[in-house]
Amino acid sequence: MFINTERFRAEFDALAEFGATPAGGVNRPCWSEAHLQAQQWWLARAIAAGLHSHTDAAGNVSATLRSANPQARTLLLGSHTDSVPNGGRFDGALGVLAALEVARTLAEARADLPVHVEVIDFADEEGTLVGLLGSRALTGQLTAAMLRQPRGGTAALNAGLARAGLTLPGLLTARRDPATLAGYLELHIEQGPRLARAAVSVGVVSAIVGIVSYHLTFVGQANHAGTTPMDTRRDALAGASTFILTAREMLLRDHPECTVNFGQVQVSPGAFNIIPGEVTLAMEFRAPEAAQLHILERSLLGLAELIGRQFRLQVRAELAGRVAPAPMSAHAQTAIAEAADSLALTHQPLVSGAGHDAQALASITPAGMIFVPSRDGLSHAPEEFTDWEACVNGANVLLRAALKLAESEA
Amino acid sequence: MFINTERFRAEFDALAEFGATPAGGVNRPCWSEAHLQAQQWWLARAIAAGLHSHTDAAGNVSATLRSANPQARTLLLGSHTDSVPNGGRFDGALGVLAALEVARTLAEARADLPVHVEVIDFADEEGTLVGLLGSRALTGQLTAAMLRQPRGGTAALNAGLARAGLTLPGLLTARRDPATLAGYLELHIEQGPRLARAAVSVGVVSAIVGIVSYHLTFVGQANHAGTTPMDTRRDALAGASTFILTAREMLLRDHPECTVNFGQVQVSPGAFNIIPGEVTLAMEFRAPEAAQLHILERSLLGLAELIGRQFRLQVRAELAGRVAPAPMSAHAQTAIAEAADSLALTHQPLVSGAGHDAQALASITPAGMIFVPSRDGLSHAPEEFTDWEACVNGANVLLRAALKLAESEA
Repeated sequence: MFINTERFRAEFDALAEFGATPAGGVNRPCWSEAHLQAQQWWLARAIAAGLHSHTDAAGNVSATLRSANPQARTLLLGSHTDSVPNGGRFDGALGVLAALEVARTLAEARADLPVHVEVIDFADEEGTLVGLLGSRALTGQLTAAMLRQPRGGTAALNAGLARAGLTLPGLLTARRDPATLAGYLELHIEQGPRLARAAVSVGVVSAIVGIVSYHLTFVGQANHAGTTPMDTRRDALAGASTFILTAREMLLRDHPECTVNFGQVQVSPGAFNIIPGEVTLAMEFRAPEAAQLHILERSLLGLAELIGRQFRLQVRAELAGRVAPAPMSAHAQTAIAEAADSLALTHQPLVSGAGHDAQALASITPAGMIFVPSRDGLSHAPEEFTDWEACVNGANVLLRAALKLAESEA
Repeated sequence: MFINTERFRAEFDALAEFGATPAGGVNRPCWSEAHLQAQQWWLARAIAAGLHSHTDAAGNVSATLRSANPQARTLLLGSHTDSVPNGGRFDGALGVLAALEVARTLAEARADLPVHVEVIDFADEEGTLVGLLGSRALTGQLTAAMLRQPRGGTAALNAGLARAGLTLPGLLTARRDPATLAGYLELHIEQGPRLARAAVSVGVVSAIVGIVSYHLTFVGQANHAGTTPMDTRRDALAGASTFILTAREMLLRDHPECTVNFGQVQVSPGAFNIIPGEVTLAMEFRAPEAAQLHILERSLLGLAELIGRQFRLQVRAELAGRVAPAPMSAHAQTAIAEAADSLALTHQPLVSGAGHDAQALASITPAGMIFVPSRDGLSHAPEEFTDWEACVNGANVLLRAALKLAESEA
């Protein structure tokens, strides 16, 4: 069984018209007019194909191919149609349209499945409002606290809800009973360079990394940059720079599966002629396993202390965020690998360094992700690109992996 | 001959009341009410001592002990009574009051000198408005361009001028004919730790450093901090950090008389989860000699290029400021050293790492500076402190060095 390549291509191109930018990308932040129109468009396509539509209280939009057995559990296939501001055409959209194409292919084949197949378009995956808003709401992970301090601001959240015809209290009622779910599969572009560099067609995601972030402050002594001898300074920036480089070396040597990033630096007082008295780094690190993330956290904080002492600086570490790693279901990984094999596609296990709705889903149901190569690893930019052949391969792997998971429900 | 210690102390304490802060320092930015009142107070003291007062069009306030010879040249002794915001009691004030005490001591001794001795309080040494405003105006170095973009802003400059009863065009008319000047001497606290650490009483300043500053930008590739492998990143902050540390090592090893400082860091885009694509460093370096400063500039810019290539970053260097080194007069240095010897005070040559009015004066007349120890090298802070004995020593060295320079005019 194969998906309909021409129809899939035509719908992919049509969806990319909603919020299209002159640079060739899309600007479709969650619940913008372009996003809401895109959702209505694909839902109309799904209804025309005989699927049953549904929008939940968190703004997740679904189209379901029902099983003959009304007691059947539901296999979710999905991704998201929202984009970052001025993003690309593939991130999220590919997964929703591939899932729609899979459900339609199954409907056309009159497949008698022991599961309902629900294509789902999750709200606000990209976090212009809250971040994984729809998948967190569906899995019961959304809290009132998250809604009180949305990362995009309260005004933007309220305006979005109003445009979508939703309410703030409603968001917290969208939880599904895990017992009704058979699993979740998502096709997505890699957003990194590894598959393309290895010339491998399919990534079988083994885990989505956990992310810990800190504001890490080195405190020395602000002083006159002309009169204070170089060898007697307590220069907070010299210590912070040493930490940045040493942490990087440590990751490369001891934690090749992990990443660390220093994305922002605040220097105080911050003048040409004053030795930095205080430097705060925005530090973020990621690991695919909880134990590894814990070791990495202790190693980095210990290293900061050590370098602080070496440079006679005090060190303050303030936790800014913590997301646990999400291992993908072994059963789903096997199904994806076998699906790729059945299509004679090369595949390899891969850790996702980016967050996805699948990490929320993994907390309540077996979840799996299929990655296809990103040219130059670029994403969240109009230049984001994946060969059309790779997109079709991904959709066919999704189809066959979904069939395997459905069969295991029988 | 010695200055009057008790009177000097009483006046020092009295001047520190103008703009006194709860923390024990002074807040006396140029042409603030506190600063103008302080100037009127010391000028009244000078007039009471029989000195002739004068305020020029740049707001420099003077009190002169006239020579019997009306054709005599003028020996300037001075410093400044303005302070940085929330500064200390010693920076500048010590030099003005010591100069006043020297002129009064000479007047009381009815010394028949071949020079006019002019005590001068320079406007805006600290640069809350323009920077070395008074001494640059007097030496003809002030330009209309500097006044169009004053570092404290146009509004602050205009408000200060109005309070002081001065005008913008007037500032450019305060130039003195160098032929009328016999030299310039200034007593100042070191603002660094070297004299105190060496337990030496007097620093004979050999030169005031030149200062060059750049905005130095490293340009890499902003990218996703989760999906981009550590070893393939073009991380602008990794390059900038390496440059900061390597430049520091180079200075310590190859240029022990020089300093470099990185006082500010700007990271773009500047988010936890985005690899820095662009990092701009505020870099400033200082050297006592022009040739050395030139070599240092070439070495630092060359090093930045080298490290840029190593990290696959582009490097942009934008000049932000350039002040030439000012060697002090050999004649003045000898006079100061002999004066210290005559008082049995230990002394050593010292480079001034900070800017002073003497660097402007050095461009038109033989200039010399006397440093006394700063406790812990602290300055521009309420904790700024110099032992009273050291202040008296400095004033007596100023007295005797002035006499030596005056004698050489005969």
